[in-house]
Amino acid sequence: MNREIIQPRTLRGFADTLPVIGHYQRKLLQVIEDTYLSFGFDPIQTPAVEYLEILKGKGGEESDKQMFEFKDRGGREVGLRYDLTVPLARFVAEHQGSLTFPLRAYNIGYVWRGDRPQRGRFREFLSCDADIVGHSDISGDAEILTIAQTILTRMDVGPFVVRVNNRHVLNGLLADLDLADRIIPVLRALDKIEKIGADGVTSELREVAVDQRAIDRLLLLIAARCETTDQTLAAVGAIVPAGGEAAAGLAAIRETLETVSAMAGTDECIRFDPSIVRGLDYYTGMVYEIQLTKVPEVGSAGGGGRYDNLASLYTKTRLPGVGGTIGISRIIAAVEGTIGHGSAAARERPLVVITNTQQDSLQPVARLAATVRRSELFDVDFYPAVSKHAAQMKYADERKAQFVLTLDDDGSVSAKDMLSGDRVSARPEDVVETLRTMAGGA
Amino acid sequence: MNREIIQPRTLRGFADTLPVIGHYQRKLLQVIEDTYLSFGFDPIQTPAVEYLEILKGKGGEESDKQMFEFKDRGGREVGLRYDLTVPLARFVAEHQGSLTFPLRAYNIGYVWRGDRPQRGRFREFLSCDADIVGHSDISGDAEILTIAQTILTRMDVGPFVVRVNNRHVLNGLLADLDLADRIIPVLRALDKIEKIGADGVTSELREVAVDQRAIDRLLLLIAARCETTDQTLAAVGAIVPAGGEAAAGLAAIRETLETVSAMAGTDECIRFDPSIVRGLDYYTGMVYEIQLTKVPEVGSAGGGGRYDNLASLYTKTRLPGVGGTIGISRIIAAVEGTIGHGSAAARERPLVVITNTQQDSLQPVARLAATVRRSELFDVDFYPAVSKHAAQMKYADERKAQFVLTLDDDGSVSAKDMLSGDRVSARPEDVVETLRTMAGGA
Repeated sequence: MNREIIQPRTLRGFADTLPVIGHYQRKLLQVIEDTYLSFGFDPIQTPAVEYLEILKGKGGEESDKQMFEFKDRGGREVGLRYDLTVPLARFVAEHQGSLTFPLRAYNIGYVWRGDRPQRGRFREFLSCDADIVGHSDISGDAEILTIAQTILTRMDVGPFVVRVNNRHVLNGLLADLDLADRIIPVLRALDKIEKIGADGVTSELREVAVDQRAIDRLLLLIAARCETTDQTLAAVGAIVPAGGEAAAGLAAIRETLETVSAMAGTDECIRFDPSIVRGLDYYTGMVYEIQLTKVPEVGSAGGGGRYDNLASLYTKTRLPGVGGTIGISRIIAAVEGTIGHGSAAARERPLVVITNTQQDSLQPVARLAATVRRSELFDVDFYPAVSKHAAQMKYADERKAQFVLTLDDDGSVSAKDMLSGDRVSARPEDVVETLRTMAGGA
Repeated sequence: MNREIIQPRTLRGFADTLPVIGHYQRKLLQVIEDTYLSFGFDPIQTPAVEYLEILKGKGGEESDKQMFEFKDRGGREVGLRYDLTVPLARFVAEHQGSLTFPLRAYNIGYVWRGDRPQRGRFREFLSCDADIVGHSDISGDAEILTIAQTILTRMDVGPFVVRVNNRHVLNGLLADLDLADRIIPVLRALDKIEKIGADGVTSELREVAVDQRAIDRLLLLIAARCETTDQTLAAVGAIVPAGGEAAAGLAAIRETLETVSAMAGTDECIRFDPSIVRGLDYYTGMVYEIQLTKVPEVGSAGGGGRYDNLASLYTKTRLPGVGGTIGISRIIAAVEGTIGHGSAAARERPLVVITNTQQDSLQPVARLAATVRRSELFDVDFYPAVSKHAAQMKYADERKAQFVLTLDDDGSVSAKDMLSGDRVSARPEDVVETLRTMAGGA
């Protein structure tokens, strides 16, 4: 057939994961899942495709414009989920009767956004959410923050900071400034401070008729971040009203961060930051954002907050909660250049390649592979077909094998350490012990 | 606001995963990934959404009719992937230059089909594929079969059989019967033997002008399965021509299964079955299907085979290979009723719930949670708010906690074993040791 070749390509904003990054992503996911589990969370999953009326329940949001929507084969209006929070709301409303509350659930899955692709921003990315649904206690806020701090520390992806705020601080100030009727546009303007600066924020605030005195106080507030949480609490305390909602917000931040410190055993990398606004639509109390301090340009590496009533669109039961997400795709984009270009580093077990030099039968090689694999100490690959020794060694090298085993004509096995170049000969029944010794001595 | 409630529901054929099944699925996925890794495979990922011309490259297939397709926001014709094999073909064609061949890659991801939903069949399901691309050696066939056998054994989901065939056996017979020009319709008819029986197959074969003598011989072939592979090889050998393609196919089956036996250390649960046809479009050599023998009604629990040229639509490089998939959603559907309805059984670490009875401060409870969690021996949940002891114990019970810890007023910790009812009092610094002893004695 003389057919045209179809150009192999992916859609813009949709990326393949090649082996090196595949191993790395797996490692990060293991940290995330293991941490969620250790905090007593249960894994749940929701579908990628949902009824559009579920996904767009709120209506008129920024997110609606970026949704991948279509009609399914039965003519139903459906969409690809934009995040995992709306599906969680639908999930808890639908399964209320079969779930234990407070619910501690995590959901790891892809979400899709018709966003403009740029570094660290994709149209398809993995969201790794954990939520506690069914109570308003401050302990939940502290747990979600401790989880974020624990995961980022265990991931070992460089310095980070978890920036924490509480909506009540800003709300209290806005009430004091008589701006309670313009909370959303004011927060939206303040949220852009890092992108458009104080001048930009000023002109946006003027558009919604905020006067200069109020603008000055708002800018003062969001610039009040100091080195330590205690200093910031004092600085912000001097800007917001001394009682009421703002003061309650400050007290909550103090108690939350003290609890995190007791749980995490440290208050490093986590602090009060009055410039954090985040998630205008959902959040009603604590909010936070994770930033990789050396690569701020990839944006938020995760975040979340507390919501008063998660599932109000789908049930009359009031379900408060708190949750957060880890932006694993952003984190990988941030560290991608530094990931070792070998699978060896990423594998938990060293890779052993068995060469294939037997002309007559596969079975001695197959048995050797089985023996080494059964030890559960090594991943074992064997070269598929009899071919030149040089080609097989090149393959082992490219795969970053740590050891190469060759079955010799006399039935003995020669083991080569690919790093040191050392060779040891062993009987087949002693191969595992030999490899274990070589690996231990490396 | 007096708003209508949006009915919380999922699309037909799209299912939520609740905690109990979530833990179970996670356990099965760990077996799958760990086995793939131990055979030296690397993890890769491809996007859920691809250009429609990629997904429908072949054109006119059964799969095309079941594809979820739509226009993206830029007006591009796109679709949700129907399987992971077409994306793999596009992937290897696109990244040829940066991959090591033979490629050993696994890809675990959701796929979407507008199929009629029924037990074990969903419109969205997780596909867990592993492929060896870049060589035609029989060792690859043996490895893929050994992996299937290893995974099903380790999953511990009841008795199963891996039914193996080789296309060359049937092709050889069809050539002998002068039916080489009707291979696809004949195979399609034979593939329905378990659904429509011998009479149904006969009438379908007559429609493509196969004469009765040929029909008899074909039905004889696909009914030739015996207790052991050796018996089946002998029985089939008496039906197909003694030389040529069919004989080569039989020799390949014998060698493949002998190699599997050497690798797996057993030939249990895996045998030659001349009735297996499977995957008309892809496969050109070995084919196999996994069946859970006690729940045949859920259909194939996995399968795969060898292909001569994986990516011919996307590259001129000839890339032979062999691969297979594990149908995890089908397997879960098959065993769902028998999964213990508690998260305890599914958790790797026992769950500890810490009750919350302190009126004044969260921090002693938070510190206790941190201490127990740091041991890495237990998953730790703590009850969020001070509330009645009975409510907290009910929660611990519903969560299937193995231990409940209560911080007493004198600063000591009381540990209760939820199974035995035993209680032990310990100092906070001795809690981990106390729990370890209680867990060991259970």
